[in-house]
Amino acid sequence: MSDMNSKPASSVRPFRRLLLTGAAGNLGRQLRGALAAWADVVRVSDIAPLGELAPHEEAVVADLADRAAVHALLEGVDAVIHLGGISVEAPFDALLESNIRGLYNLYSAAQHHGVRRVIYASSNHAVGFHPVTSVLDVEAPLRPDCLYGVTKCFGEALSRYYFDRFGLETVCLRIGSSFEAPRNARMLVTYLSYRDFIELVRCALFTNRVGHAIVYGVSDNRIKWVDNTKAAFLGFRPQDSSLEFEPQFPPGAPDPDFDDPTQRYQGGPFVLAGPMEPRS
Amino acid sequence: MSDMNSKPASSVRPFRRLLLTGAAGNLGRQLRGALAAWADVVRVSDIAPLGELAPHEEAVVADLADRAAVHALLEGVDAVIHLGGISVEAPFDALLESNIRGLYNLYSAAQHHGVRRVIYASSNHAVGFHPVTSVLDVEAPLRPDCLYGVTKCFGEALSRYYFDRFGLETVCLRIGSSFEAPRNARMLVTYLSYRDFIELVRCALFTNRVGHAIVYGVSDNRIKWVDNTKAAFLGFRPQDSSLEFEPQFPPGAPDPDFDDPTQRYQGGPFVLAGPMEPRS
Amino acid sequence: MSDMNSKPASSVRPFRRLLLTGAAGNLGRQLRGALAAWADVVRVSDIAPLGELAPHEEAVVADLADRAAVHALLEGVDAVIHLGGISVEAPFDALLESNIRGLYNLYSAAQHHGVRRVIYASSNHAVGFHPVTSVLDVEAPLRPDCLYGVTKCFGEALSRYYFDRFGLETVCLRIGSSFEAPRNARMLVTYLSYRDFIELVRCALFTNRVGHAIVYGVSDNRIKWVDNTKAAFLGFRPQDSSLEFEPQFPPGAPDPDFDDPTQRYQGGPFVLAGPMEPRS
Amino acid sequence: MSDMNSKPASSVRPFRRLLLTGAAGNLGRQLRGALAAWADVVRVSDIAPLGELAPHEEAVVADLADRAAVHALLEGVDAVIHLGGISVEAPFDALLESNIRGLYNLYSAAQHHGVRRVIYASSNHAVGFHPVTSVLDVEAPLRPDCLYGVTKCFGEALSRYYFDRFGLETVCLRIGSSFEAPRNARMLVTYLSYRDFIELVRCALFTNRVGHAIVYGVSDNRIKWVDNTKAAFLGFRPQDSSLEFEPQFPPGAPDPDFDDPTQRYQGGPFVLAGPMEPRS
Amino acid sequence: MSDMNSKPASSVRPFRRLLLTGAAGNLGRQLRGALAAWADVVRVSDIAPLGELAPHEEAVVADLADRAAVHALLEGVDAVIHLGGISVEAPFDALLESNIRGLYNLYSAAQHHGVRRVIYASSNHAVGFHPVTSVLDVEAPLRPDCLYGVTKCFGEALSRYYFDRFGLETVCLRIGSSFEAPRNARMLVTYLSYRDFIELVRCALFTNRVGHAIVYGVSDNRIKWVDNTKAAFLGFRPQDSSLEFEPQFPPGAPDPDFDDPTQRYQGGPFVLAGPMEPRS
Amino acid sequence: MSDMNSKPASSVRPFRRLLLTGAAGNLGRQLRGALAAWADVVRVSDIAPLGELAPHEEAVVADLADRAAVHALLEGVDAVIHLGGISVEAPFDALLESNIRGLYNLYSAAQHHGVRRVIYASSNHAVGFHPVTSVLDVEAPLRPDCLYGVTKCFGEALSRYYFDRFGLETVCLRIGSSFEAPRNARMLVTYLSYRDFIELVRCALFTNRVGHAIVYGVSDNRIKWVDNTKAAFLGFRPQDSSLEFEPQFPPGAPDPDFDDPTQRYQGGPFVLAGPMEPRS
Repeated sequence: MSDMNSKPASSVRPFRRLLLTGAAGNLGRQLRGALAAWADVVRVSDIAPLGELAPHEEAVVADLADRAAVHALLEGVDAVIHLGGISVEAPFDALLESNIRGLYNLYSAAQHHGVRRVIYASSNHAVGFHPVTSVLDVEAPLRPDCLYGVTKCFGEALSRYYFDRFGLETVCLRIGSSFEAPRNARMLVTYLSYRDFIELVRCALFTNRVGHAIVYGVSDNRIKWVDNTKAAFLGFRPQDSSLEFEPQFPPGAPDPDFDDPTQRYQGGPFVLAGPMEPRS
Repeated sequence: MSDMNSKPASSVRPFRRLLLTGAAGNLGRQLRGALAAWADVVRVSDIAPLGELAPHEEAVVADLADRAAVHALLEGVDAVIHLGGISVEAPFDALLESNIRGLYNLYSAAQHHGVRRVIYASSNHAVGFHPVTSVLDVEAPLRPDCLYGVTKCFGEALSRYYFDRFGLETVCLRIGSSFEAPRNARMLVTYLSYRDFIELVRCALFTNRVGHAIVYGVSDNRIKWVDNTKAAFLGFRPQDSSLEFEPQFPPGAPDPDFDDPTQRYQGGPFVLAGPMEPRS
Repeated sequence: MSDMNSKPASSVRPFRRLLLTGAAGNLGRQLRGALAAWADVVRVSDIAPLGELAPHEEAVVADLADRAAVHALLEGVDAVIHLGGISVEAPFDALLESNIRGLYNLYSAAQHHGVRRVIYASSNHAVGFHPVTSVLDVEAPLRPDCLYGVTKCFGEALSRYYFDRFGLETVCLRIGSSFEAPRNARMLVTYLSYRDFIELVRCALFTNRVGHAIVYGVSDNRIKWVDNTKAAFLGFRPQDSSLEFEPQFPPGAPDPDFDDPTQRYQGGPFVLAGPMEPRS
Repeated sequence: MSDMNSKPASSVRPFRRLLLTGAAGNLGRQLRGALAAWADVVRVSDIAPLGELAPHEEAVVADLADRAAVHALLEGVDAVIHLGGISVEAPFDALLESNIRGLYNLYSAAQHHGVRRVIYASSNHAVGFHPVTSVLDVEAPLRPDCLYGVTKCFGEALSRYYFDRFGLETVCLRIGSSFEAPRNARMLVTYLSYRDFIELVRCALFTNRVGHAIVYGVSDNRIKWVDNTKAAFLGFRPQDSSLEFEPQFPPGAPDPDFDDPTQRYQGGPFVLAGPMEPRS
Repeated sequence: MSDMNSKPASSVRPFRRLLLTGAAGNLGRQLRGALAAWADVVRVSDIAPLGELAPHEEAVVADLADRAAVHALLEGVDAVIHLGGISVEAPFDALLESNIRGLYNLYSAAQHHGVRRVIYASSNHAVGFHPVTSVLDVEAPLRPDCLYGVTKCFGEALSRYYFDRFGLETVCLRIGSSFEAPRNARMLVTYLSYRDFIELVRCALFTNRVGHAIVYGVSDNRIKWVDNTKAAFLGFRPQDSSLEFEPQFPPGAPDPDFDDPTQRYQGGPFVLAGPMEPRS
Repeated sequence: MSDMNSKPASSVRPFRRLLLTGAAGNLGRQLRGALAAWADVVRVSDIAPLGELAPHEEAVVADLADRAAVHALLEGVDAVIHLGGISVEAPFDALLESNIRGLYNLYSAAQHHGVRRVIYASSNHAVGFHPVTSVLDVEAPLRPDCLYGVTKCFGEALSRYYFDRFGLETVCLRIGSSFEAPRNARMLVTYLSYRDFIELVRCALFTNRVGHAIVYGVSDNRIKWVDNTKAAFLGFRPQDSSLEFEPQFPPGAPDPDFDDPTQRYQGGPFVLAGPMEPRS
């Protein structure tokens, strides 16, 4: 399916210029290959070095907290895939600069420049304080499990506002654990293969209308904590599963420490990760 | 699956006489072959010519608006597959005769003659004014997108009444776009293959009890606007998908005309189709 | 409350011309007094004689099934209070002319003439096949209890369409039993005093925005089958109750005929009233 | 999948001692093989003869109604798979001893001995008075269809209490019809293959946390009356289906006896089975 | 209101014979006066002495666990107000005899003798493990807070079965704290005045149809943990409130022992009351 | 009611020290009188002058964005009533300092000092982009109508995190329009009288357990856009209404500019207020 769809029949690419922030990060690197087929120019941005550029890429180094730089970054852009910012628990001041001030800068500039759509990397940590014995649909109440998760709630609210106010569309991807392979038993549930991640971005970018949508980014794993039924208009159908990795993490008898919050809540170790003090 | 089920083990067919209205139309013609295995006699009816009859078929030409004719039409019938009437936007007076007066005549006669079940061709246009960013279950509020859709709401209400009042069962099939192939990007979502259409009718006809049921008629397409979970007692599992047709309609960048109602609502161009003036 | 609100502070009346259909009927007569304070001109219409006119009234006799007459009727009108049509079970052909064709004529003409709002007399018989042991909110599924109720479902669907398509607002009043006093034990539950009826129309007419709203028209009776919580934006707070009439209809021991549908369903005797044959 | 998962990579078995009650019954016998891989010792118990024991098995004959015997039975146990008690309609006094007093004894002893989890064989007969035209999620209201079903409601309430009060986890398996093959048309819907039953028990036993969970035990049959979406955290994905058995039970025309409760309700013949008088 | 309604206009009392069990208990004594107006004969029953009988009363001493005695007790009865059994936490064997075996005897006999309706004293302890920060409607999931509460869940399931199976109607009254006055701060929320209790029984007995209904028995207290909206068809409108008693239990600062279950859950001290060992 | 409750029977005040932020603002000034009865010491804080202090008051001037100052501010405090920060639309950088950084400082310090509860002034502008034709319960999805509203969404998420992580309780008051009197027609719906505001704070402060609660702060106005049923455990029952002010804002005929967002959405003029540029 991905072959068929990632190369549209016509040689004209659907987007003129896409912006990819966080392009130097783990997921950013996964996406860069796919983007070649989707846009004439891909503007890749990060605060870290971006490596060698492909012919269709243009690099812009920008700090999201720098309003002027972000306004320049958004110029001439059709749509944004926003993976930038901090994606783990961190001291609040750092989160505030990149994930709050930085996100405001991004939306403010996007609206100013007439950008039509943002794909926003939200996180399952926006709802990680729900218990592992529940299955969340995309309308489940927010339950952030760390300050990082709180900033993702901010982002979902801010993007909702820009949609209601200006019609600027956003798809919030509540990405689970997107790595080569699950690293522990919990990630058997939250695993999102790279291939499925790319397909999820493709769906978010190419669905005709998305409004302000929320969707969980997980592969078709056996155990499910989330339910994307109400986001089915995005057409995301994961092709991978963590099933092949299950033997690496054989389950044991029920845990004697029943109250351990890292086992009780979907956020796992994140629920104890914050608030973090600044590194001195 | 369809082979196995469309030919019951015994050579005795489950129905003595089935009535198929709208038998000369596109979907009527698709069904006629399958009906041979289900009933000893299939009474086919339309106001248009019905073509050559198969040995098990008997033809009755009847105008649904003619009460006496419809009462004769229903005599001796076990169950009805009602595809008749107008299935596109039309002037109100025409819709009123075929889809309102005609439908009343059909139910009145069915009740009079002790018919046990009607399969009623409703339409996704009964709910077409829901946005394309929503996923409707079978209890979603009615949002007709044209006068034709309003008459389908009438039909769902009328059939509900005949069930509550007389126990006459109906399955309302909210049929999407049932053609050889999708004809545009929207139909990638609403596509119902002929094979899946026939299977849907089979489920509606042969499920032991259906009460008054509503079910969406769509194939297993990648993008979904509807969710049949609450109608799962009908056992309809589509086997086809529009996936193979996706390359014919490659998506573009987000549409600059955000307010275009034909793009915002599930009904597509139908939302602007009515009300239609009579042809002079 | 009603005094205070029915006479706006300023001497300028809020509406230039209101149309009241069904003005010769029971509820129409109740309203005519109140309308004097709300509009400079009240166009009263019916197929029955309208009695003596007040100075602010103008009379138009029109058959709703007559399209041209209805178009003339709507000319120059700001808003419509539509009590016209048949409000009891009747032969289908009669219902079809007045409640289906007539209603289409009304909306078609209202849209043509730029009318902004219709107050539509729907009925609790649109949902009368719900059991008396349930409490319906304004989103309860339709369960018409007679053909008359089916036509009210049609009206709710048609008015929804005109709102979604043209922005023509409607408030559907699901009126219970509006008489001088309840006439039997069931009406203790469905009773709507005349004073509360007038207040309900006032709320429907004067709430700034109503979209397409549904609201139950019942007084603050002790036993409730309906719940207007989701229609609270209309501000309807009944002031009367059937409590004072309860001693007239003392309850007995539980009914030995448990299956009697006129006792099991909210619609009461209506559930057996139809379908009615035409009077010869 | 089952091979891979039923033999954890390491040779250390996850449980030290599992208790299987009802081990001499139909489903008990199916499970005994699988349990060898999950626990060092499997204590099998019944009031009927248990047959030849495997090397890892230890047999305890105990009457569930005998409190002291049950307390002894639970000693040294990590987790319980409770298939014991009566699983068909029976005189109330018999049900009371085995399914009510017996179940209390089991939970009382389990709590006393620090058992962490019980897999409890509940039944679809706890909800069998829902109509066959509905699809139940795991939060559907209780509608027992016989006294046996009432005792299963008791068990679900008792186990909920032990979880809320003591943190003793339970998975209530609402088992459908688990036999070699469906025995009639209704069982095409309620069929649970032995392989899927074993997988369901495996999921219930090995999911890290289950709290107090309810899940339907049915294979992936074409027609569905139940929906396990909200129990997806258990990871149960049936691999079998009754589809291959459908030709054995070809459907007929709609049943003329519309009111037959054994056809109207999910419980089928159970709805008329009780209350049963004691055999004299 | 109660005066007006408790004495029907006619001198003929609506019931021929009412049975009141638990007539010697606190609430039973409150009711006996009111019942005089409702029935020609009131059969009062208990295992404790019943005091002096009024002219319209007949006394039957019966142990609910004695099947034959209970069958005799129900003979000639129109309707039952069942306050009998144990209404506090107790050893399981005692609860089993009175609240489980005894209740089965009652329903079995009621069905046998054609009784039409039972008013069943359930309890808020059937849902007492819900947190004090939630508001429960009548469809909230069962969360018994003690073994006594578990037996009330049994009673609600058993009575549901008798309704679905035989049409024997029941109103389950989830009675809060019905005393002269609240005895502690928690009872400010759960308080049910005697006057409101009697009115609640009146509504349950005289509403024309009740099916199988659940309703919370609380007065119109300021703080609410329960919501009877969906039971509004019973017409219960409490007239009293605990407001006047609030000064007796002034609130303090938030409790430092946040985890104290007797403060966290609606059941209060009951959540730690069980399971109770038998008194030796 | 307020008299009775605002002066607990005993002369010992329930709180040792309450902190009131934003004490110099409009609502802060309203509260200061009531707080005298609730705490031995009231620490009042603002960045504006605090006026003359009452004997039980101690003043601390602090900028919420100053972490050290806020940590000092929270020392020795039992509970906080947080009205501080910006409560109108403002440039993002200003909102970020006071409502985001400032709020984090407040919660971080509160948790550090063992504060048990925060009463947080959220706003109906967190949900102001819902249409005026809907009625929101306390679980309605967030729809901020301006950047100020977005910061309130942040605050609700942050406080939820502190509750889930540390058990620090918060009541989020979504305050409507709390002034002497409504100032326009929209405020007839959103009006919260000062007396009701004080009662709302009292309920939030003195309810035994609140967890993380959300409640709308509106008086008992005739028209309702919000529904506090699910927050009824807080015991807030407004005593005032905007009814007496209705004649000052007589409604007119339906607005011809149907698309005007300030009329369509609950947020009124706020929906067009942002984003605001900084004042130069």
